[in-house]
Amino acid sequence: MKMIHSMVRVRHLDKSLEFYRKALGLEVAERLDFDDFTLVYLRGAESDFELELTWNKNQEQDYDLGEGYGHLACSTDDLDAEHRRMREAGVGPADIKEFFRDGALLARFFFIQDPDGYKIEVLQRHGRYL
Amino acid sequence: MKMIHSMVRVRHLDKSLEFYRKALGLEVAERLDFDDFTLVYLRGAESDFELELTWNKNQEQDYDLGEGYGHLACSTDDLDAEHRRMREAGVGPADIKEFFRDGALLARFFFIQDPDGYKIEVLQRHGRYL
Repeated sequence: MKMIHSMVRVRHLDKSLEFYRKALGLEVAERLDFDDFTLVYLRGAESDFELELTWNKNQEQDYDLGEGYGHLACSTDDLDAEHRRMREAGVGPADIKEFFRDGALLARFFFIQDPDGYKIEVLQRHGRYL
Repeated sequence: MKMIHSMVRVRHLDKSLEFYRKALGLEVAERLDFDDFTLVYLRGAESDFELELTWNKNQEQDYDLGEGYGHLACSTDDLDAEHRRMREAGVGPADIKEFFRDGALLARFFFIQDPDGYKIEVLQRHGRYL
């Protein structure tokens, strides 16, 4: 049993595709168009795990994101460079945070939000977050 | 930039840990206990992508799951055997479905739900879903 993708529903597919390419370098691995909906599988260069976007064409209001789902997390070798790059690209990253436990650095990260408001955590490759 | 985990908030950590072990064979890769919350990283044998469970100890009601987040998907070599195994283990899988497009099988799958109601799609390894 292998985890292969995570699916979220999006309101404006083109905006989402642009965001995920610009922010995370995810490209369209496959796009499946149907009458009422489109499925898009996004993939990065470093992993075969995919993000599936579902675009329901008749959805007329923003999705209620609830409070259960937290985020998708990505790791990078150079958090500061990614933060700077995203700031300049207009992605709007939040400030870089550091999370310590018993004096040891657990995580160094920042959050971004996609066009629907889904949170994405970008982590410096370190410790658990490789 | 590499997708490394997906995070969901859970009400009853022990029930969730038992479910993910029993249903998907995910084991605890790391558990981080803090005063008010616990983070658990679950991992399977076939991928380094992890599921992060956040247990906020003061959460007093079920999480509103909203309608935006869809599911986590897993692939397996033998969908029928997994379906049977989960039925016998009390996981309560929904019926197996087949999804065709232009006469070709796109996906053969079933859904399960974790103790908080998050959906998980289990897919026969085929086509896009490897």
